Amino acid sequence: MHPSSGRHRVIIEQVRPEIEDGHFAAKRVVGEEFVVRADIFTDGHDQIQARLLFRPRGTGQAGQTDQADQADQANETDQWTLHPMRPLPNDLWEARVTPERTGEYEYALEAWVDHYGTLLHGMHRKLDAGQDISVDLLSVAALLRAIAARAREAGRPDLEDLLRKAGEALISTQAHPPAALAQLENPALLQAVHALPDQELITRYPRVLSLHVERKRALYSTWYELFPRSWSPEPGRHGTLRDVIRLLPEISRMGFDVLYFPPIHPIGRANRKGRNNAVAAKPDEPGSPWAIGAEEGGHTALHPELGSWDDFAELTAQARAHGLEIALDLAFQCAPDHPYVREHPDWFLWRPDGTVQYAENPPKKYQDVLPFHFETKDWEALWRELADVVRFWIDKGVLIFRVDNPHTKPFAFWHWLISTIRADHPDVIFLAEAFTRPKIMARLGKLGFSQSYTYFTWRNTKAELTEYMTELTRTELRDCFRPNFWPNTPDILPEYLQYGGRPAFMIRLILAATLSSSYGIYGPVFELCVAEALPGKEEYLDSEKFECRRWNWDQPGNLKELIARVNRIRRDHPALHRTDNLRFVPVTNDNIICYLKTTDDGADTLLIAVVLDPFQPQTGQLDLPLEELGLTEGRPFLLKDELSGERFIWQNRHPTLELNPHTLPARILTLKRTMKREHDFDYFL
Amino acid sequence: MHPSSGRHRVIIEQVRPEIEDGHFAAKRVVGEEFVVRADIFTDGHDQIQARLLFRPRGTGQAGQTDQADQADQANETDQWTLHPMRPLPNDLWEARVTPERTGEYEYALEAWVDHYGTLLHGMHRKLDAGQDISVDLLSVAALLRAIAARAREAGRPDLEDLLRKAGEALISTQAHPPAALAQLENPALLQAVHALPDQELITRYPRVLSLHVERKRALYSTWYELFPRSWSPEPGRHGTLRDVIRLLPEISRMGFDVLYFPPIHPIGRANRKGRNNAVAAKPDEPGSPWAIGAEEGGHTALHPELGSWDDFAELTAQARAHGLEIALDLAFQCAPDHPYVREHPDWFLWRPDGTVQYAENPPKKYQDVLPFHFETKDWEALWRELADVVRFWIDKGVLIFRVDNPHTKPFAFWHWLISTIRADHPDVIFLAEAFTRPKIMARLGKLGFSQSYTYFTWRNTKAELTEYMTELTRTELRDCFRPNFWPNTPDILPEYLQYGGRPAFMIRLILAATLSSSYGIYGPVFELCVAEALPGKEEYLDSEKFECRRWNWDQPGNLKELIARVNRIRRDHPALHRTDNLRFVPVTNDNIICYLKTTDDGADTLLIAVVLDPFQPQTGQLDLPLEELGLTEGRPFLLKDELSGERFIWQNRHPTLELNPHTLPARILTLKRTMKREHDFDYFL
Repeated sequence: MHPSSGRHRVIIEQVRPEIEDGHFAAKRVVGEEFVVRADIFTDGHDQIQARLLFRPRGTGQAGQTDQADQADQANETDQWTLHPMRPLPNDLWEARVTPERTGEYEYALEAWVDHYGTLLHGMHRKLDAGQDISVDLLSVAALLRAIAARAREAGRPDLEDLLRKAGEALISTQAHPPAALAQLENPALLQAVHALPDQELITRYPRVLSLHVERKRALYSTWYELFPRSWSPEPGRHGTLRDVIRLLPEISRMGFDVLYFPPIHPIGRANRKGRNNAVAAKPDEPGSPWAIGAEEGGHTALHPELGSWDDFAELTAQARAHGLEIALDLAFQCAPDHPYVREHPDWFLWRPDGTVQYAENPPKKYQDVLPFHFETKDWEALWRELADVVRFWIDKGVLIFRVDNPHTKPFAFWHWLISTIRADHPDVIFLAEAFTRPKIMARLGKLGFSQSYTYFTWRNTKAELTEYMTELTRTELRDCFRPNFWPNTPDILPEYLQYGGRPAFMIRLILAATLSSSYGIYGPVFELCVAEALPGKEEYLDSEKFECRRWNWDQPGNLKELIARVNRIRRDHPALHRTDNLRFVPVTNDNIICYLKTTDDGADTLLIAVVLDPFQPQTGQLDLPLEELGLTEGRPFLLKDELSGERFIWQNRHPTLELNPHTLPARILTLKRTMKREHDFDYFL
Repeated sequence: MHPSSGRHRVIIEQVRPEIEDGHFAAKRVVGEEFVVRADIFTDGHDQIQARLLFRPRGTGQAGQTDQADQADQANETDQWTLHPMRPLPNDLWEARVTPERTGEYEYALEAWVDHYGTLLHGMHRKLDAGQDISVDLLSVAALLRAIAARAREAGRPDLEDLLRKAGEALISTQAHPPAALAQLENPALLQAVHALPDQELITRYPRVLSLHVERKRALYSTWYELFPRSWSPEPGRHGTLRDVIRLLPEISRMGFDVLYFPPIHPIGRANRKGRNNAVAAKPDEPGSPWAIGAEEGGHTALHPELGSWDDFAELTAQARAHGLEIALDLAFQCAPDHPYVREHPDWFLWRPDGTVQYAENPPKKYQDVLPFHFETKDWEALWRELADVVRFWIDKGVLIFRVDNPHTKPFAFWHWLISTIRADHPDVIFLAEAFTRPKIMARLGKLGFSQSYTYFTWRNTKAELTEYMTELTRTELRDCFRPNFWPNTPDILPEYLQYGGRPAFMIRLILAATLSSSYGIYGPVFELCVAEALPGKEEYLDSEKFECRRWNWDQPGNLKELIARVNRIRRDHPALHRTDNLRFVPVTNDNIICYLKTTDDGADTLLIAVVLDPFQPQTGQLDLPLEELGLTEGRPFLLKDELSGERFIWQNRHPTLELNPHTLPARILTLKRTMKREHDFDYFL
């Protein structure tokens, strides 16, 4: 038993966030408030104090080494910034801190019995009851002397002086007790008292926890995915990176900030798949970009038909000039003719018949793809090599990676890889492309992925969307799983889009863009409302995964203007730069979903309503939380629809909305107070 | 990084129960099933296996010392019993074990990728799709050889032989593939495979967790509290322990099994309180039993007027003969004239004016009671002394302690005290008398108290009771907080009892006795329906806390017969021996609460309905879960009211109940199947 452990009377428990017992870091972005809460209490009736300790990782050890001469002080708080916690109801305490730089941070909690506060509190109660407090004042004076002594030990003569004088004043002057009490509550004195708790009696939460702070794009991003090989202007030619450069102005105009490509590496020739996933490719067929590696090279090579390293450099530079970041695919698997198979046969599983194990999920077979055998005894070399692949592309200027099927590689590998890369490159963003079971999706978020694909792709009804958004924003997931909503992907053309026509594409776009601060579309099939699937499947017919396509990007009925408008609204409204600031508004019709998005200060408030039925116009009555919006029942208020430009006057909590999926299936209404209440209605613009 | 850590592919997380990160033990009683669950999953599509490791605490170390010669095997599972876990939906796995002896147990979890199961599963899928499995069979044969090698290393030649032969049979015989596959699923072979996972690839949950198994009375107990000093047959005399011996047959007849006394120690004379908590006692007034200690002695002395050590021994022996256990009060505080104050002044807080600090919660003062100063630097001696007090009474035959106000002493102290005592005396039961904030109540349960007082005392409406019971039985509290329901205590005469008359006492008795497997009453004021309180307070008028009272136990209108009947029903029905087997049944009237209590096997099922309005008869319609009860809509079934003896035939899920608080405010209906469905109705008795 620690010599003073029996004297630690305060309990700190249920710290949140604390991801898997502190094994993983909570997530925030630069400038995003970090709220730490815990249940903190003590025995008896005593007052307590609590504080959050916060520091960039590494400060502690480094600091202690640099200042070894001060180590004798045993004051472990030197390297921390200290943030007082404030009590909320039911023994809950909280502190808030807003990190301003990317990187790893550590946080810890401390709490102690506040004898000073306890005495003051008791004296107030006694005075109220007409009781004598003269002995209590003597007790306070003794306590102030003890704290002053601690100030001296801590090398704080200023505080020592303040405390000592306060104690002496209490004894020497025969102040009227209420006046004496008031002097003891002088803020500078209280601050000094709270800064100097008795170190022997402090409870320190046993774990130091971690926070990972990323750049803002980890939370707020707008993705566009395309297959470069489909964009040659000449029929029958393989598209190139230079062809993509021509598209940048339009992609930028639509308001995207991340441009993501499927793998751009050489494609294997062995067991290459043909059009529509045919088992064997015809001689001229290009194969799947995810069958990575051939004699030209593997994960660090460029597909020769896409262009040269100069083209790649030109593309990334031009993209940057258009406000776009290039994101690449990390698909850690190999075509059978990938150089790794020859150079590192023990990174693959060999079967008793001498063949190498290809990917399969019986009875499905993926003969053009070999998974790595992560149980290999040579796993450390494999891990290092894969980290080098990531570093290679970072050196080429790529800082965003969409990770293909991370759930088919060991969790420990991803935790290590992401931590390793981030230690040198805190700006790297990893998006987990895992469509799998909930516990696995959550684990990938916990272990460090910046963003994750989600079930949004299949959540269509109001009940489904409400339940899922509640899970994402009101549970532990809020601290460790950042959603990125995709209405479609090269692998998924959901039934809703297959059957719902152009209105369905509009609906899913607006939902994705306003429910989640990060979303993406796979184009141009999305904005062209392409809806032809393989019969009975959610797979695209004639998928670009297996062939080069050609597109008329300006085809009538395309959604480019709507996309540009929605993304401009996103850019202009900070309320859309977070996902957790969502609140649903009841509507009498289950075919209409309605929600509020608000910044913490309420300065930016959006009321969004979307019809979920892509076929029929729908009407519903809202139930607005007027008071929380600063509005008054019966007083008219103005709203502006940022999508259509229309304006409305409403005057009660139950306005009626009609939404027509064939014209504009949603309203994104601004409720931003712009002037004081000078007229006979509350004025919002 | 551990040399093989990167090869551990299975994740084990969210283990439940796990109380405060495993810092505290979960609770069960002998013969109670212990269900352990965890989220367990791996990457990819592989099958997994998981198992629970379970052992009495200390087995591990002792075993390893005794069998040091086997230590080279590095097989850490030697000392554990292994319980396979089974998968539930959504990556949840569970194992069940029923400990049969009291004491501390440890449990751990292990899981690994089941390559054998993965291959077999894949082969089934391939056969279904008409694919060839000949190479897979070769893979299985290779795997069987590897497992056979592990069997040899583990010193299991029997398993080695079985595995090796199975592998050879697969290669030598040209069995039809489906037949070969069937042979591989032979249960003995599967058992051998699952018993011999590759130790290098096993994921072990990083914490060993604890389970504390107590005797059954920790979960199922029926308490009666009385003040011995009030039971003298002669007016004006102080009651004695011998007077209590005369009461034992009647207390036993009422069906109680624990008889609890307030402190029986010498009562301080300094600052003694008078009747109704008067600041000063008159010379003949006895004072509060909780003001412990005087010149006659302290916590290990008997109040001289109660009797001698021989009387105490006779009382405990006689009680035992009547099926009653004596429970004593542990009130760790002192009267100002307690010997400790003189012998250990540093166990108390001295104020600057030279006086000792008495208990206060300003403006309230408890001048007759000094709290221990647990922040004393001599805390270790204080802790040891208090543990010795407990050991003293254990030596006198007392194994149940009701702990007074544990929330005003440090949590760490209780954790240490209870662990220390239990290490030598696993049968000791501690009941926490804490009526305080929720987090603190929960913490006391977590750190080891066997039972706890609850908010039941103030939960009267259906909504309140439903919410509270849900919290107790459906949250983490279920594993660490055993409720003991008290409708009244010497400190609390709730408003509901003050105003509700005799029906209120009946209602609260039946609720306490059937909602919670442990409950108690403070008598004889409870069964005599004494309802006179201090004006505007929930305190008894003329409380026995401050004076000796006299009672006519056979006063007309007393509830002794009802209590006896209710306690007999409790005794006869195992469904009432647990608290967590509760399910509420909807009723159309909020003044009637209805619930089912069922044993796991369904053999004992009770349907209980209680009117909550103590004034008016109430009628309501139930909504019974017929199917779960094995009943069929429209087929009549029989029920027996164990309280009144009446029988009913019902035939649908919506029977109507009328309850009259003035006659019998509840029904406790048996739904116990006693014969097969031979007649034209489902027959229950």
